[in-house]
Order: sequence, then C-alpha cells, then structure tokens
Amino acid sequence: MKSERNIVIIGCGAGGGTAAQFAHKVDRKAKITIFEQSQYPQYSKCGLPYVLSGIVSSFNDLIEFSQEWFSKNNIDLFLNTTVEKINPNKQMIYAKKDGNIIEKEYDSLIICTGGKPFIPPIENMKTNGVFSVRTIEDIEAISSFIKKGKNAVIIGAGFIGVEMADNLHKIGMNVAIVEALPSILPTVLDADMSKLVLDKIPENISIFTNHKALKIESENKKINKVLIKDISSDEDKEIDADILISATGVIPETELAKKAGCKIGETGGVIVNNKCETNVKNIYAVGDCTEYVDFVTRQHVPIGLGSIAVRQGIIAGTNAAGGEYEMPDGVLQTSASKLFGIEIASVGPTKNSIKKLSIISGKYSGSSLLSYFPGGKPITIKVSADEKTSKILNAQAIGDKAAQRINTFACAILAGMNVETFRKLETAYAPPVSPTLDAETLVCDIVSLKLNRKR
Amino acid sequence: MKSERNIVIIGCGAGGGTAAQFAHKVDRKAKITIFEQSQYPQYSKCGLPYVLSGIVSSFNDLIEFSQEWFSKNNIDLFLNTTVEKINPNKQMIYAKKDGNIIEKEYDSLIICTGGKPFIPPIENMKTNGVFSVRTIEDIEAISSFIKKGKNAVIIGAGFIGVEMADNLHKIGMNVAIVEALPSILPTVLDADMSKLVLDKIPENISIFTNHKALKIESENKKINKVLIKDISSDEDKEIDADILISATGVIPETELAKKAGCKIGETGGVIVNNKCETNVKNIYAVGDCTEYVDFVTRQHVPIGLGSIAVRQGIIAGTNAAGGEYEMPDGVLQTSASKLFGIEIASVGPTKNSIKKLSIISGKYSGSSLLSYFPGGKPITIKVSADEKTSKILNAQAIGDKAAQRINTFACAILAGMNVETFRKLETAYAPPVSPTLDAETLVCDIVSLKLNRKR
Repeated sequence: MKSERNIVIIGCGAGGGTAAQFAHKVDRKAKITIFEQSQYPQYSKCGLPYVLSGIVSSFNDLIEFSQEWFSKNNIDLFLNTTVEKINPNKQMIYAKKDGNIIEKEYDSLIICTGGKPFIPPIENMKTNGVFSVRTIEDIEAISSFIKKGKNAVIIGAGFIGVEMADNLHKIGMNVAIVEALPSILPTVLDADMSKLVLDKIPENISIFTNHKALKIESENKKINKVLIKDISSDEDKEIDADILISATGVIPETELAKKAGCKIGETGGVIVNNKCETNVKNIYAVGDCTEYVDFVTRQHVPIGLGSIAVRQGIIAGTNAAGGEYEMPDGVLQTSASKLFGIEIASVGPTKNSIKKLSIISGKYSGSSLLSYFPGGKPITIKVSADEKTSKILNAQAIGDKAAQRINTFACAILAGMNVETFRKLETAYAPPVSPTLDAETLVCDIVSLKLNRKR
Repeated sequence: MKSERNIVIIGCGAGGGTAAQFAHKVDRKAKITIFEQSQYPQYSKCGLPYVLSGIVSSFNDLIEFSQEWFSKNNIDLFLNTTVEKINPNKQMIYAKKDGNIIEKEYDSLIICTGGKPFIPPIENMKTNGVFSVRTIEDIEAISSFIKKGKNAVIIGAGFIGVEMADNLHKIGMNVAIVEALPSILPTVLDADMSKLVLDKIPENISIFTNHKALKIESENKKINKVLIKDISSDEDKEIDADILISATGVIPETELAKKAGCKIGETGGVIVNNKCETNVKNIYAVGDCTEYVDFVTRQHVPIGLGSIAVRQGIIAGTNAAGGEYEMPDGVLQTSASKLFGIEIASVGPTKNSIKKLSIISGKYSGSSLLSYFPGGKPITIKVSADEKTSKILNAQAIGDKAAQRINTFACAILAGMNVETFRKLETAYAPPVSPTLDAETLVCDIVSLKLNRKR
C-alpha cells in the first residue's frame, strides 16, 4: 500500500470544498487535490441574491474558504481548471489549465460538478439582458445590467426566483414574476400555504402564476418586452422588461460522470448510495449533480439544496479518506427562506408530490406568544399525515421561527413519529418566549382529530 | 345511567381551568363545576413577574379565561370557595363559601389544588417585607412594598427567582440573589451552562451562589438586612434588604387528596397514571399537586411546569368526560425563560440529576447565521447522551431561538433518538434564517466524536 492516499475532487462548490475539508480531517496525510472550473473557491451560492440588494456587501464575503485556507491545510486547489476526462480503469483524471494538460492519479475521486441552469423554452433566450442565477458571474452581470432600466421579469417562482424579486424590489425595481404552475413556491408549499405568502407580497411586484413566458422581444439589441400567455384563458399579455432573470431550476451536470460509467437516475442525477459512492469503483459523487431517495415518498429526487450538498460532502470526504459516515435513509428536503420579511420553511414533499398515499392535512394559525405578552408574531403551520399510519409526512410553516419549528418536524419525520405522539410533545413555555402549547402541537391536534373522524 | 355527567374540579388554575374546558369540549351535556379558593379564575402564574416591571400592564391581562367565559360555556365557577372535604364513597365534596356549606355530588372529580411556596428555614420569615411569588396577591403586595426602598434580596436562583431579579432590576432596584447551590438555574442548566448566563447578568445584580440565608433582621418592624453564610468558607455576610422575595420552590398542596385516600409519592405529590387518574375511583389529579415519571431517569418528579399542568388538564378533562387521551410515558420537563434579554431553554434532567448512567456531554457555541450575513446572534447548546446506547438524555441552549431548538431535542428524546441519528438531521438552511448546519447537529457531532473515542 502506498504511504499517501490520493483524493481528487472535481468542483469546489459547497459539496466539493466540504469533502476536501473532511477528507483532510480524517486523514491528515492524504494528498487532496481539487479542480475547479471557475476562478472562485467554495462560496455560498444561496447568498448571491443578497449581494444584489447590498444586504451582503461584496462577493468576497460569500467566499467561505479562501485559496489561502486550502493551501494552509495542504489541499491543492486548482482554480480555472477544467477536468476533461476521467479514466476509471487507470484511476486517472485529465484536466486543462491555461492550455496545459494536468494528469492526476486518484485512489478516490469525488465528483462535485454541480448543476447548470435549466433554460426554459422561451423564444429569444439569447437576447441581451437575459440572465440565470447560479454563479458570482451571473450576479455581477445582472448587477451591472439593472442600471439600464427599472423593469425586471423573473421566470420561476421557486425560492430563488422570489428571493431575487425581494432583493430587486429592495433596490427599487418593478418586478414581475411569471410561473407556469398555479401557485408560487410550488415545490416547498402547498397552494393554500403559498397563498399566505402571496398576500404579503408588495403591490409593485406583479405575480403571473399559471402563465407561460413565450417570447422575448427586443429593441436596440436589448430586451424590452416579454410575451406571456395565461394558461387557463389562453390570453396573451405583454410585460415591459429591461432585464429577464430565469430561475426555473437546475439540471445536474453529469457529463464527466456519465462518460466515466456512472449510472444516471430517473431525475438526471448521478445515482449514489448512502456513502455517496457511485456504481464505479472509487468514484463518489456529491451535491447538485446527484440524486437520492426521498425519505417520505421513497422516490428518487434531484439534490438541489446546499445543506444536503454539504452533508454529502462530509460523507464522501470522510469515506474517501478511510472514515465511516453514512447518509440517513433518504433526504427530507428541509428548506427555508425569508421573503419580504417573513420566514418560510418546509420539510417533506408537498401534497402534490405525495401520490400514492391517502393523506390528511391540518392547518393552524396563531400567535408566537400568549395574547397578554407584547411582541407576539403570527405563525401558521400546516402538517400532513398518512391516513393509515398517521405518520407525519410533511410540514410547512410561515411566520415566527418557522425554520426552527420545521426542524422539529424534520426530527419527527426522521424518527417516523406519528401525529398522535407529536401532539403531546412537551414544548418549552415561557411568556416572553413561546406559548403554553406551541403551534407545532396544536396543528397536530387538528390533524389527529381529522384522522379520528375518518376512522 | 343518569342523563348528565357531573364533573367537579377543585382549583381553577392552569390545570383545573383547562380540564373544565376540555371536559366541556368532549361532553357538551356534562355538568361541570369548579371550586376556586381565590377571587380569580384561571390566570397565567408565569406572567406574574412581568406585571411588576410593567411589560405586562395589568393583572387583568393575565386572566386567560374570565368568569363570563366559563358561564357562557355552561361551566359553573365558584370563586372564593374552599373545598373542605371529599367523601370518595358517596362521591361528594363539601365546600364553603361566605360561611355557607355547598354539597356537590360528582361522577368524576379532578383535584387541581396546585402547590404552596416552600418556606426556607430562615429566621424571622414572618418579618414585614418578606414575600413569596405565587399568586396575584403576592405580586400586588410586592408591588406596593417595593416603593419603600431600593434593595431587594431574592432567595433562590431558579427561573422564577432570576425572572424576579430581571424584572426588579428593570424598574431600578438593586438586587441580590442568594442560592444555596453552587450555580444559578441549577434545576435547568448544568453548572458550565449557567456560567454563561451569569456572565450576562448586569453588574448591579449581586449573585451569592453557595450561600445560605440564615436570618432576617428588621428595623422599625420592617426588614432591613439579611444575614447570609458562605457555605464553603463559613463566612457570615450581611446584605441590605428593603424587601425579601422567597423563590425556593413549591410544595404540592395535597391535604384534601390525602384525606380522600389518594396515594402520595416520594416527592410529595399525588401519584397519577397516564390518564391522570389517582388510585381512588373516579378521582383525577392534575398539575402542581401531582408527581409523574421523568421520561429519561424513570424517577418520580414533582410537576412544576404550567405547560405540563395544561397538558394534564386536557387529559383529565377529556377522560373525565368519557373521551380518551393519555400522557406520554414520562415528562421531559422542557422549559424556557428569557433573562436579561437572552433566551434560555432546557429539556431533560440536568447532569446532576442523572445518577445511574454514564453520560457523555458536548457543547457547541456558534452564530445563528453564516458569518457573512448580518444579524447573526450567539447560540450555545449542550447535549448529553447515554454512553452505552448513545441516546440523547438532555439538551440545554442559551441564545438565539433557544426554546425552539430545545423543542427539536424534546422531539428527539421522546422518539428515543441517539446522537448519531440526530447529528445527520437535515435542518433548514437559508442565509437570512439559519446556518448550513445548525448548532443542533454540530453539538451532536461533538458528542458523537467523544462517544466514539470512548469505544
């Protein structure tokens, strides 16, 4: 056996950077090399919209680990370097930097190639003024372009689309959001819950749900209008647009992995097991280029969350370096955002994504404090449970400490807890902090009563 | 069978009031009668300290359900009425109001007699200016007395003692807290965690931990000094005192129950099962007059939390009215407070209370947000696990959203989850809301590593 373990990582995003750090933690002698296509080491993609509004003051702030950090920790980081081929038999990779080929042997390879923006089928997407939201470069480009006019059109009402709307609105833009589905935030909230967010959206943000963007029109080689169609009525509309931002999701970047023989799953991501191993010997994959099992539906789902990419990075890095660490038996897809000052969080698949089960849902709205204590804030929670087993399947929250409340439900789902047990959860009570019975348990009372009526 | 169910409740505190409401919900035809010794219907005892500082503007605000509410809901509430005897064979109670005897038959009786302040063995406790903190009357008396001088001495550094200190400090009093144990908040925080709270206590609040109050001295028939002793050095000290507030815990009020044949447990409370039934047929007991099993230690513990009293009220009321609802298999003693602006929360027994197990603890301090995002607040969490099974036994948190974070641990303890599973919990991440990996999981990483080293 060689004295040193060679770990090669392709991509220095959240997954790749984290994998490197944990591999280094587990095996201090391991030789770790990262190849990153862009000019930046690991940075927070989720922070990008906030640079636009100035809440985060510079792109540099988003860089979580600098090139110096990696070099101090004996991790070789090659920036501006593209891996062009993997030879899984020789356990070699071939990369290119400044026209030079770099050959590198590996004992373990971790593929963290991430994803690329899905480009929606809108006519003239190559018009000047059309952008995606994925990288520092994207936001830099948007940032310089928004000086040219006040009207922004965003395609896609997922978290990123609405976060972009919030941040553009903060700097005085007029924003229109176009979403083909009937409600906003469709992958994280049921329609009735997303309606509550809709009610909080400022008036000068127009929402076109159930609308499809068809065509971009330009004037002086620059976008000036977007043609959209109302899906129900077939009516065509035109919206003024000085900039268009496409936020319609991400496609796993799997070309290298596929060529190396890695199996690709039904959602287009590299299939990995609970150690983040692919089917190819000594090749791991992590993050947005992968797919994994959903804990609740047992269906494969694409990995699109930074928090999961980081967890997978820990697992792949640890295992590649000879340690032991495994993913839970599925992803919960716990996610959150703060939009227009309101916290929103969700765990588990939305009602629409749970296809095979009969489910019972309940919703509770109340205050975060007892009515006599000043400072209470609204909180709404919705929970769905399996009609047969009464197991909690998902939870969605809007308002006070929504994310932390959803984390409690994440714990319950991970434990396979049913609503009858959860409703009796002894939550912390103190007048300045939280009510005698938390909204978490009260919503489960409602679901539980509904379940009993069905029986 | 009679057409109407007769439910009698002794005591209209959180437990009794709630029992009445839920009995009424379950059986709309039931005849429900509450006898309450004081002049007030159900009010929030936990809110009392905040009336003193004016955060809550009046005692009336604390009344959660008015006499009108009860009468509207067909619940007979007798205030200023003392139940003097229970005859469990005839299923009758005998009460006294304005010198008149009221006799009342019951099908189910719910005893919610609460607790009375423990009076510490300090010489001259009957001096003018010495108070307990238990009722509206207590706070009214304190409120009028504090005008007589600026120096307050509080005996007992539990949540109530320190909350009183916080609120008295807010209105300009000099406060000294005397606690016989070596650390503050000893029943909810391990000593190392309570040290973090100590560091935040304003300078003009003096803390005398490891000190025993011996004697109250008076001048002009009014308290003016407290003599205390340093338990380690045996040194005697004198503290100026214009008022003394005793907050040294509560003794279950069980006289009526005992005379009716209810078994009293090792901690002095009425023993109840998971339906809140006592050993006497058709007699339930609820709240501070009872004791129950601790979920983690399996030892009996007194019920001292309003949230548990309310839960027991729901359970006793539901069962007494013919419904079905059971307590979980033990209490978690989840609790919280906000002291000097900092949220503090705890679930499970403190390290000192876990006697029979080998336990491993870990502590994590970090920020509530990633460093690049403005507004992050400190959060410290400590978790202990059973060395053998790695099950989570307790968790304590100080700082950002401590109570909600502790609720997640409460869920984990209730589910019997171990730290290895919890550390992989997928928590919600968004830059303005919470970090990529929450402090909750990071502290479990630390405990888990320590456990592995032991193996």
